[in-house]
Amino acid sequence: MDSRIGIIAGGGELPLLLNEALARKGLSPFLFPVLGSASEGLLSQGKTIDLLHLEEGLAVVHSQGIRRVILAGQVNHSLALGSLPEEVKTLINEGGGGRSAMELFAILKRLFKRFDMEIVPYKDLLPEAFPAPGTLIGMPPCEEMGLDLSLGFKTARRMAELDIGQSVVTKKGLVVAVEALEGTDRMIDRAADLVGPGFSLVKVARPDQDPAFDVPVVGPLTMEKLVRYKAAALGVEGGETLFIDLPGCLEMARRSHITVVAE
Amino acid sequence: MDSRIGIIAGGGELPLLLNEALARKGLSPFLFPVLGSASEGLLSQGKTIDLLHLEEGLAVVHSQGIRRVILAGQVNHSLALGSLPEEVKTLINEGGGGRSAMELFAILKRLFKRFDMEIVPYKDLLPEAFPAPGTLIGMPPCEEMGLDLSLGFKTARRMAELDIGQSVVTKKGLVVAVEALEGTDRMIDRAADLVGPGFSLVKVARPDQDPAFDVPVVGPLTMEKLVRYKAAALGVEGGETLFIDLPGCLEMARRSHITVVAE
Repeated sequence: MDSRIGIIAGGGELPLLLNEALARKGLSPFLFPVLGSASEGLLSQGKTIDLLHLEEGLAVVHSQGIRRVILAGQVNHSLALGSLPEEVKTLINEGGGGRSAMELFAILKRLFKRFDMEIVPYKDLLPEAFPAPGTLIGMPPCEEMGLDLSLGFKTARRMAELDIGQSVVTKKGLVVAVEALEGTDRMIDRAADLVGPGFSLVKVARPDQDPAFDVPVVGPLTMEKLVRYKAAALGVEGGETLFIDLPGCLEMARRSHITVVAE
Repeated sequence: MDSRIGIIAGGGELPLLLNEALARKGLSPFLFPVLGSASEGLLSQGKTIDLLHLEEGLAVVHSQGIRRVILAGQVNHSLALGSLPEEVKTLINEGGGGRSAMELFAILKRLFKRFDMEIVPYKDLLPEAFPAPGTLIGMPPCEEMGLDLSLGFKTARRMAELDIGQSVVTKKGLVVAVEALEGTDRMIDRAADLVGPGFSLVKVARPDQDPAFDVPVVGPLTMEKLVRYKAAALGVEGGETLFIDLPGCLEMARRSHITVVAE
């Protein structure tokens, strides 16, 4: 259990921020940027992995003595939509043909196991970044905000159940935007463009959330969007949502009078 | 029952196209463009209605001898989100405070009734524009397209039940985009941007669809988007979806090898 942690790094800010958070804890992770998904800056910082040759990639990770990995960041949708590596296609067919996120995660897990590697939940490494239920910052929700948050939680949970997405935006009793493949940040842009300031963003876990995969994440970039667009509130799934830099995020919310609630 | 038809005209292409379709049937409708919602071109073509003074507006319609109206086109969301006229606020409060589309429609219906006016379903006026179930044009769906359409119908029906939206885009077994407040056309842009050609658009009716309000509509602009982005298929609710220029839409689909299915 004292093997170094490997980060299989997709796109977006998450891999680097996670790398920093783990480094601050003295864990000095090993980065494996995913070709075609990880940002330019990341590609030079470790051994790259080509999803089209996934078994080779995992062999590389294994050969570095890594037995515990975390998966972070978005992977190019072509993985789910197009040119899948043969071994993944075989596993998909064995698994009944489904390509939903949860089905693909189950397949990945089996693939990593073959290489004697374990996918470690973020929560085991950074428990302090998963706030428990409660009002985390700001005024307790007023009536209107409370209704928007409760509509948001109700709707987001239905979406997560249907495996469509995990985030929604509400305002004045209306569901303004629902996330599917585009991701939370692009959904926030759209929602703000449609209804202006004062909306609530709610982000939840899947009902069958595997803590090793694709947990709901809130980071500084999402928070900056909420600040810029003058959101009223952020609701997250208590104990299940990873905050990248929780104190920093809450300080941003405090300064902009954004209420943050974990439910 | 032989009173002239009035079209209360919001934004988008629908009011004018509907006006033309009804005119071709010799009905010569009277246009009432809604201030702040109807396009510039429309505003000069009839007596404008200000939603902030809705009762006055309805009195104007009534004074023209109009007893049958249809509502067409989008109305600025401020109606649902902001500065509502006092009489509508009162009706909302009497009705339990909800501001969902169906709740607002019920309120409008009562308001029109007060003025001895009836809101007429499109289907009564243009029955030929509502295709019955079946493959309307193109090859019967292949296996992959069939799965995407069936996922689309399933998902869109859940969204409509939750009163979130009526359209979704699917591709290769994934829900790519879900419509909420942004409308179908902006959702198609987003979906095409995310996954490229070959997707399926499905548009359904609400489970409690009032044929007088906000029926699902497909028109040349939506069709042009599907052609431009090389969509694979369009699925609509059979007998409940209004096609603006059905023959024209099907001809566009035929030329671009888009399968159109009513279910």
